Amino acid sequence: MTLTDLFATRSARMRASEIRELLKLLDQPDIISFAGGIPDPALFPHEAFQTAYAEILGGPAANAALQYQVSEGYLPLRRWLAGEMGKIGVACDEGNILITSGSQQALDYLGKLFLSPGDTALVTWPTYLGALQAFNAYEPRYDRLTLAGGNMTPEAYRTAARAAGGEPKFAYLVPDFANPTGETLDRAGREALLDLAGELDIAVIEDAAYRALRFDGEGVPPILALDCARSGGIDRARTIYCGSFSKILAPGLRVGWVCAPRPIIDKLVLMKQAADLHSPSINQMAIHLVAETAYDTQVNKLVAAYGARRDAVLAALAAHMPEGVHWSRPEGGMFVWLTLPDAIDTTDLLARAVREARVAFVPGSAFHADGSGRNTLRLSFTLANERAVADGIPRLAALIRDTLAA
Amino acid sequence: MTLTDLFATRSARMRASEIRELLKLLDQPDIISFAGGIPDPALFPHEAFQTAYAEILGGPAANAALQYQVSEGYLPLRRWLAGEMGKIGVACDEGNILITSGSQQALDYLGKLFLSPGDTALVTWPTYLGALQAFNAYEPRYDRLTLAGGNMTPEAYRTAARAAGGEPKFAYLVPDFANPTGETLDRAGREALLDLAGELDIAVIEDAAYRALRFDGEGVPPILALDCARSGGIDRARTIYCGSFSKILAPGLRVGWVCAPRPIIDKLVLMKQAADLHSPSINQMAIHLVAETAYDTQVNKLVAAYGARRDAVLAALAAHMPEGVHWSRPEGGMFVWLTLPDAIDTTDLLARAVREARVAFVPGSAFHADGSGRNTLRLSFTLANERAVADGIPRLAALIRDTLAA
Repeated sequence: MTLTDLFATRSARMRASEIRELLKLLDQPDIISFAGGIPDPALFPHEAFQTAYAEILGGPAANAALQYQVSEGYLPLRRWLAGEMGKIGVACDEGNILITSGSQQALDYLGKLFLSPGDTALVTWPTYLGALQAFNAYEPRYDRLTLAGGNMTPEAYRTAARAAGGEPKFAYLVPDFANPTGETLDRAGREALLDLAGELDIAVIEDAAYRALRFDGEGVPPILALDCARSGGIDRARTIYCGSFSKILAPGLRVGWVCAPRPIIDKLVLMKQAADLHSPSINQMAIHLVAETAYDTQVNKLVAAYGARRDAVLAALAAHMPEGVHWSRPEGGMFVWLTLPDAIDTTDLLARAVREARVAFVPGSAFHADGSGRNTLRLSFTLANERAVADGIPRLAALIRDTLAA
Repeated sequence: MTLTDLFATRSARMRASEIRELLKLLDQPDIISFAGGIPDPALFPHEAFQTAYAEILGGPAANAALQYQVSEGYLPLRRWLAGEMGKIGVACDEGNILITSGSQQALDYLGKLFLSPGDTALVTWPTYLGALQAFNAYEPRYDRLTLAGGNMTPEAYRTAARAAGGEPKFAYLVPDFANPTGETLDRAGREALLDLAGELDIAVIEDAAYRALRFDGEGVPPILALDCARSGGIDRARTIYCGSFSKILAPGLRVGWVCAPRPIIDKLVLMKQAADLHSPSINQMAIHLVAETAYDTQVNKLVAAYGARRDAVLAALAAHMPEGVHWSRPEGGMFVWLTLPDAIDTTDLLARAVREARVAFVPGSAFHADGSGRNTLRLSFTLANERAVADGIPRLAALIRDTLAA
């Protein structure tokens, strides 16, 4: 755009951001918020970080921590991550790992790598809002991926994409405890997705931000692991796994990673070099130290705490919600997804919820590429303490009841 | 691009990166390197950072340091920066400041904001290699900006841009102690540039990475300050100032900033939210603490150290270089720029320099959008200790003499 345009226009794609702004403004002490998808700061491994930064800056690694770093990221952290990926069925080495500034940055780079204006990205309805925001910059068209089966045929996807002037380029999904639904795709669903991706010859972007946060039920292998098994190894796979330390250790350091076939990593490294040189050296080193000593303990702590909060929220929903309201029963992660009767628009409901009931959530339409899902909403349970559950859920339920009666 | 393309092709734009890779490999202990444009780690304010991280993580701000943060950046740092900008003639407030992950990220976002494929970016010949890498992602055409006067007319620039299917979108330059030439644009040159930008109605991207590092001579106001004076205030200006803490405090934290008219900052904030949410909270807080207490001391320390190294390098060049070799005499920054006789290709010279003379530099063609400047090279003097000057410059001079004689 020109400088003059810039001053004259506003993006047409601001709705989701405006909702976020609204939510930010609503951060008042008497509001019970189930909105923000953020970890509970009381559970951060404070002491481990304190020790890590002190050790790094007080020791022989101080210069490296403060200096420029290679674009692919801090080698010991990449090696540690390759080892962790091995434990979940992805045999790989540090050449398959790129450190990113949170997994959000990976989504931005993958959009830049794959999408030209008019190309098609396959996403679930609903999907992670931040992924839509990252991809939107590259002006794709979205088509719908249905994980419960009932997808279109590859030919139908391709025809629709070409009619819009592009090609299908990738399928993006959060297969474990999805943001926003909390749902997990089973093994058969993952295999079916790989079949579809193979027929379309497109990449699969596996957003694994919540993967480690399983409270109960049985784990499912990452899509990348299933892909490696069928394709004969990571460098022949089509799946790009995006991981993050934000939900387990701390989001404020902005450290995530991509695990992918080496040709993709090589491209992303060049892209990162051009875009921000590298992620902060000092934070990569701190994350490495904390991960090496405290990762598993921290996962256990979060699983216990968030698992109990999920239980409490589900119990309160069962006790208070009127008939016609349905919700997901996540086995992990951070979110419960509510579907209300069609008559309710949750964006309107949010305004009343904040003003009258002093409760906040995220309206579901923000997560839909086509703006549908107007009768859905997302509740985050990571900050749901006793008061939030005891007061917040009944107040929200009463408001929904009241709205239905009106 | 498609997944299949990705595996089959390599970018045509890898030359600069390949040179960088070569330089990385050449990082052997007996090589005297004038190549990397990096600060001397011995001069980092180690203790100030140690204290800052300990204070942050041990105090009431620990949760904020580890948690998500707004995309525009940490408010106290943005306020401090607005104050600093005021001291150099740019009256503004925190709404005119965005924190970026180094100024490299600002260049990437500005490329994304302004450039569509085929648009024209005006850059100097030579210019900062990283800027070309950042802009290249958006597929512009480059046209030449001549700071010594002798630019094309606005109409000629526009005609050339339209013939290539786009419009001129911005002029990018490093006006103070430029990377790679070390040269500084005088006030008249800055005013002339603003005239040209006004006639073309394009933005000016002022890369101020080295601005604080003036060793001698008289300071020149930032282009943004001159722009504010003529346009009636920052929100009516067309100049976008990109600053960085990398050269003064430490690059490993990746903290830079943009100071610009508010409509531009608002756009960049949305872009940053979509691209990586925000720069690391903890590093912004640490930079703020260190900047508040140690910025001026640190500038003085660097000016004394780097100024002496520049003097030593210039003296050695005068003592040893053969006739026909010319170089810049920078009043600050990190670089001296050499122009050799036309017969010498400095990319070839580099291979011999490393193999035979055990000296490294960056060949000048890497900094030219059209690949010209084959007889030029960049020397960084930030790591030029006594041995480097006493041995490295004579060895390089001898090699040049030898090459000319061959």
